[in-house]
Amino acid sequence: MLQKIERMNWLLDFYGPLLTDKQRRIAELHYENDWSLGEIASEFGVSRQAIYDILKRAEKALESYEERLGLVARFVDERQRLLEAYRLLMGVKGEENGPIKERVLSLLEEVLRHEG
Amino acid sequence: MLQKIERMNWLLDFYGPLLTDKQRRIAELHYENDWSLGEIASEFGVSRQAIYDILKRAEKALESYEERLGLVARFVDERQRLLEAYRLLMGVKGEENGPIKERVLSLLEEVLRHEG
Repeated sequence: MLQKIERMNWLLDFYGPLLTDKQRRIAELHYENDWSLGEIASEFGVSRQAIYDILKRAEKALESYEERLGLVARFVDERQRLLEAYRLLMGVKGEENGPIKERVLSLLEEVLRHEG
Repeated sequence: MLQKIERMNWLLDFYGPLLTDKQRRIAELHYENDWSLGEIASEFGVSRQAIYDILKRAEKALESYEERLGLVARFVDERQRLLEAYRLLMGVKGEENGPIKERVLSLLEEVLRHEG
């Protein structure tokens, strides 16, 4: 199970564009940029409670997309397999395998970096 | 660029649950099960034109999700890299690498099968 902040960051990464602009901006400030509710409230000139309510609605919307589409769960699961493959490949022996090993590691890196 | 039917199948696979039930059922019959518009119209007891209109609305909704989220494009791109990695790995030599090679191929197969 992902930690709350990590989970929210993945949900934002996948479904953020489906939120309203305001929900997305506030959720990004809080979860990606680590602003406190008080700091966001000052910035927007509204109450801390107002920011809290917007955040809760954004989280609910993101969780609802994930409940229907399940793409973050699928992604986290695949990522674990690819990381295991990457680590195992580091143990491949033999000079004649050097170029293949290098290219495959680089392909997996591209996928893992892209997905992160 | 994916062919239309293949593309629609991926879009349905990713975003289908966000369509209305009727849109999704008709789009699945047409794109996944290869029913003609006339066949679907008979089944639902409506005109061919009505089915055509529902399909067009479903396609538009799916393309709009993809335009905002881009998850099918990202997936197709990653899949190409993983397939290349898989093919390259088949060429790894040496008996001492046998178990690693087998396990990594099996991990990649799981990811590729799951994604397909």
